[in-house]
Amino acid sequence: MTYQQLAEQVQKKHSFLCVGLDPDSNKMPGHVKAMKQPVFEFNRRIVDATADRAIAFKPNLAFYETLGKEGWHALKQTVAYIRHNYPEIFLIADAKRGDIGNTAGKYAEAFFQDMAFDAVTLSPYMGGDAILPFLEYPGKWAIILALTSNASAGDFQTAGNPPLYKRVMQKAAHWGDHRRIMFVVGATRAEALREIRMFLPDHFLLVPGIGAQGGSLADVAANGLNRQGGLLVNASRSIIYAGSGTDFADKARKSAAELQAQMKALLKEHSIIS
Amino acid sequence: MTYQQLAEQVQKKHSFLCVGLDPDSNKMPGHVKAMKQPVFEFNRRIVDATADRAIAFKPNLAFYETLGKEGWHALKQTVAYIRHNYPEIFLIADAKRGDIGNTAGKYAEAFFQDMAFDAVTLSPYMGGDAILPFLEYPGKWAIILALTSNASAGDFQTAGNPPLYKRVMQKAAHWGDHRRIMFVVGATRAEALREIRMFLPDHFLLVPGIGAQGGSLADVAANGLNRQGGLLVNASRSIIYAGSGTDFADKARKSAAELQAQMKALLKEHSIIS
Repeated sequence: MTYQQLAEQVQKKHSFLCVGLDPDSNKMPGHVKAMKQPVFEFNRRIVDATADRAIAFKPNLAFYETLGKEGWHALKQTVAYIRHNYPEIFLIADAKRGDIGNTAGKYAEAFFQDMAFDAVTLSPYMGGDAILPFLEYPGKWAIILALTSNASAGDFQTAGNPPLYKRVMQKAAHWGDHRRIMFVVGATRAEALREIRMFLPDHFLLVPGIGAQGGSLADVAANGLNRQGGLLVNASRSIIYAGSGTDFADKARKSAAELQAQMKALLKEHSIIS
Repeated sequence: MTYQQLAEQVQKKHSFLCVGLDPDSNKMPGHVKAMKQPVFEFNRRIVDATADRAIAFKPNLAFYETLGKEGWHALKQTVAYIRHNYPEIFLIADAKRGDIGNTAGKYAEAFFQDMAFDAVTLSPYMGGDAILPFLEYPGKWAIILALTSNASAGDFQTAGNPPLYKRVMQKAAHWGDHRRIMFVVGATRAEALREIRMFLPDHFLLVPGIGAQGGSLADVAANGLNRQGGLLVNASRSIIYAGSGTDFADKARKSAAELQAQMKALLKEHSIIS
């Protein structure tokens, strides 16, 4: 997907919502767990209920790998289902991979050829070698961890001068431009977000951490929006586990709609939509 | 597996060899590719041919994920095969994962419960949150990326003062001791290895990068061995693709035996075995 196409989705849907697809059997409704393909059936219902409010979906690979080959199959089915029914959706493999050379190439094959993801989240620890193989696929994106929302992000990301996360962003400028690279910046980092936006005016940023982790959507918007929108704000549990009964998909729809309504208001307030 | 059990393997087998199981259909012998379960059949033959020379095996997850659910199944079969037939082997999931909280917990489940790995390689970029969930499993290990062997390792790992890789090692001391944590240090970093050994006298280090990547086994041994051995030196392609015909397993056996003979001589030279 191109930068332009992604930016158009913000305009069309009045949204910068990314829905995290993290199917957890401890939290899935009982009647879905009893189905033959519970993970796919769960995802399909969530996707159908929220696809008009979201511009991106983000399956977190861990939740599939823990289910072994059935999990992998469910992931592949989910990706195919979204691609077929909602071709405008930006599809992110939240894999946080980070390996080199032919290994990175194999991961790229898995996510971009074997499955039709648009982007994959990557760890920069091993340097450019771990990122570049993903950029060899035209139209595909690398989403690089920069400043994450978790408590121990400060162990390394903010250490050094310049801090590591800035060094990552600076280096990444040599790997590709804003049309191929995004960064992960946690919603709990509103001040850093403002500063990042000054030196990265055009990049999309993938922002986890609103809701459960305590980040504020209004703060993220005020500090992070650019003229194109430039944000993908992720919500997972607050949407997909909004309900736990037979009406879970309706509850998810309602939760996504509420978040999207807030996003629409913020997009208007910041003059990104009219 | 305990530290003591791993150290005993060095003594028993006169080896610190780890064999990387990276099945690549572009390199696998044609007669194996024609089999019904080519990846498992390839791995099984490599394992049988080299298990008496190696103390660890290390499947690289990317090579399995790129094959989808069949790949995942082959991985699981391989792990079960090794566990059943060679229970003394230390089994490493070379996954380089690095995610937080419940996601890390799911990866730990996948590698330590669903499959019987002893250890998983992890990226420290997100800090302790990404490592600690793996240490909740008694007897299981976290192998943390520190100073890797690839060209772009210097993009971030050696930046800062102290350099990032040292900061990682220092922080990790708060997460667990040498009986649960190892570090990845590339064979191409012989000088750094000497310095690392001074402040980490007891840790095992997982060392990739001999052979194809240019690291010298003698240098690694001189700088990295401790009283227990304390090294797992990995070789992948030079062993598993030593041959490409019907005799590939014999060629692999020969290649592993040569490397182990060198290791035995080095262990003697450094008075670790008598």
